[in-house]
Amino acid sequence: MPDKVLRMTRSEASGRGLRPVMLAIAGDSAAGKTTLTKGLVEALGEERCTSICVDDYHAFDREERKSKPFTPLHPDCNYLDIMEQHLQLLALGRPILKPVYDHTTGTFTRPAYVEPREFVIIEGLHPLSTKLARACFDVTVFLDPPEEIRHQWKIDRDCAKRGYAPEQVIADLERREPESAAHIRPQRKYADIVARFAPIATRNDPPDTPLSAELMLRPTIRHPSLSQIPTDDNRTAMHLKILRDSDGTPTDCLHVHGHATTEAARGVEKAIWAELDVPGGPPQSLGRITDDRRSEPLAITQLILLFHLLSLREGVR
Amino acid sequence: MPDKVLRMTRSEASGRGLRPVMLAIAGDSAAGKTTLTKGLVEALGEERCTSICVDDYHAFDREERKSKPFTPLHPDCNYLDIMEQHLQLLALGRPILKPVYDHTTGTFTRPAYVEPREFVIIEGLHPLSTKLARACFDVTVFLDPPEEIRHQWKIDRDCAKRGYAPEQVIADLERREPESAAHIRPQRKYADIVARFAPIATRNDPPDTPLSAELMLRPTIRHPSLSQIPTDDNRTAMHLKILRDSDGTPTDCLHVHGHATTEAARGVEKAIWAELDVPGGPPQSLGRITDDRRSEPLAITQLILLFHLLSLREGVR
Repeated sequence: MPDKVLRMTRSEASGRGLRPVMLAIAGDSAAGKTTLTKGLVEALGEERCTSICVDDYHAFDREERKSKPFTPLHPDCNYLDIMEQHLQLLALGRPILKPVYDHTTGTFTRPAYVEPREFVIIEGLHPLSTKLARACFDVTVFLDPPEEIRHQWKIDRDCAKRGYAPEQVIADLERREPESAAHIRPQRKYADIVARFAPIATRNDPPDTPLSAELMLRPTIRHPSLSQIPTDDNRTAMHLKILRDSDGTPTDCLHVHGHATTEAARGVEKAIWAELDVPGGPPQSLGRITDDRRSEPLAITQLILLFHLLSLREGVR
Repeated sequence: MPDKVLRMTRSEASGRGLRPVMLAIAGDSAAGKTTLTKGLVEALGEERCTSICVDDYHAFDREERKSKPFTPLHPDCNYLDIMEQHLQLLALGRPILKPVYDHTTGTFTRPAYVEPREFVIIEGLHPLSTKLARACFDVTVFLDPPEEIRHQWKIDRDCAKRGYAPEQVIADLERREPESAAHIRPQRKYADIVARFAPIATRNDPPDTPLSAELMLRPTIRHPSLSQIPTDDNRTAMHLKILRDSDGTPTDCLHVHGHATTEAARGVEKAIWAELDVPGGPPQSLGRITDDRRSEPLAITQLILLFHLLSLREGVR
């Protein structure tokens, strides 16, 4: 890690009146936001990161929601005005008193005093849903897995960690679908990076092959120069092509193959890291899904985000 | 009440981008802040007022405070930065998500979404303790009863409503005294109005005589013209004199006598009300201490505050 080069303690940062680098990771429930965030925080160092989930701005607790005609996906179910306020405050380097929603009990508990460190990572259902909220971020990501994969992730997680039965989760997904379409998926168009983890449809890889990543790198921010990276040695790990975005503007689209060899993937990682002009190699914590599962496409996605965070930090020094 | 003349619904106010009139009522624990506030809210109408207590910005719950070297009176025991933030937001007409501290259990509960209405009344231990907080108010009051009276009020209240024994309250008052001196009483100098409810030392009134009020009306804001109000009919109810404030500046000092007849007191109330140029007479709810106890000095104090609130509201229309 480039700790020696880029480390700056919070008090130094405050003393200089620096504002943090703000990253949004938006996406539907169980789209992979927390997994993506964890690897970034570990790579940057917890002492330099503030990572919060903005799904705690619910206006109603679980009991109250039962009598409401909407799910937590609906803007009216959330204090989005307070979320905007808190994002602005964090972006200005100011502390907030964040509401805390306990997913286990479905109730609100003691709020948390949160101070922004050098890097603020905001994940949630709604961070890109309003203009004022979007204006608070330096880099924005939308996680866009195929719905059948996301559904399976949600069933797995909600049953394992939040005490639901599979039928409950499936019913919940159905109930949420119209609001996903109306309020969550529209945020995709505001992201600088759209990341989609999925198997490659045209291949017949064995089931334990890591998911491939398709990254839409929109020209709304300056991305690392990736066009020279695929070489004869690592071309199996990724390829880059330009295409037209749905609105007609040219965009880069990076494919990172889950079936590539670790060696080829590591070659790509080193090449991206070299762009940053920081000593040492890419952080080892990237790509971790669970303690014993690793994905090179995830590592490369995180590396590109790390590139943005670190180069923006340099920019504000 | 002048409801027809001055009523404006919240949505009208928001639509016009109006900011609320902000009143601070500062003072030590059990100084009478809530009693003063209640009469104002009732007179103005609940639908036009937002009244909050800013003693909920504790950084620690009751259990955690046991191991701390300070009481809730100490700035370090509170998130005064968050309090400042919330006061600024309210002053700009924006909502806040306010922390809620449960005095019964000594723990934090679900925060409350609070929108500023036309009049925002902020009471608490610390509202005048920082420059940024003070800048949020249009009118500031400090309640300054003699310590022996405040101690008795605190014993009565904490035993009746918060489940303490008298010895506990007395021990608490002793423990708090150095921090009262260091952090609460210094706020007195920043108030536009200092109100002191006390018996008149030179008289020997029967024990059920209402306390008299001594109101220091500092020239930091424009007060109603009171110099013509004492007439032959009501001179027993109050008198006004100018004196030098502790910093040497001239100030008005209004004495309102608890021993005056209701008739004389009502004469004064009508005369102050006439200054406002609003139809109808002064609100009947002023001066109420409990359901069956009334104090004309309290009513006159509230009337002067009402004068300020209503004339400022007119000013922003």
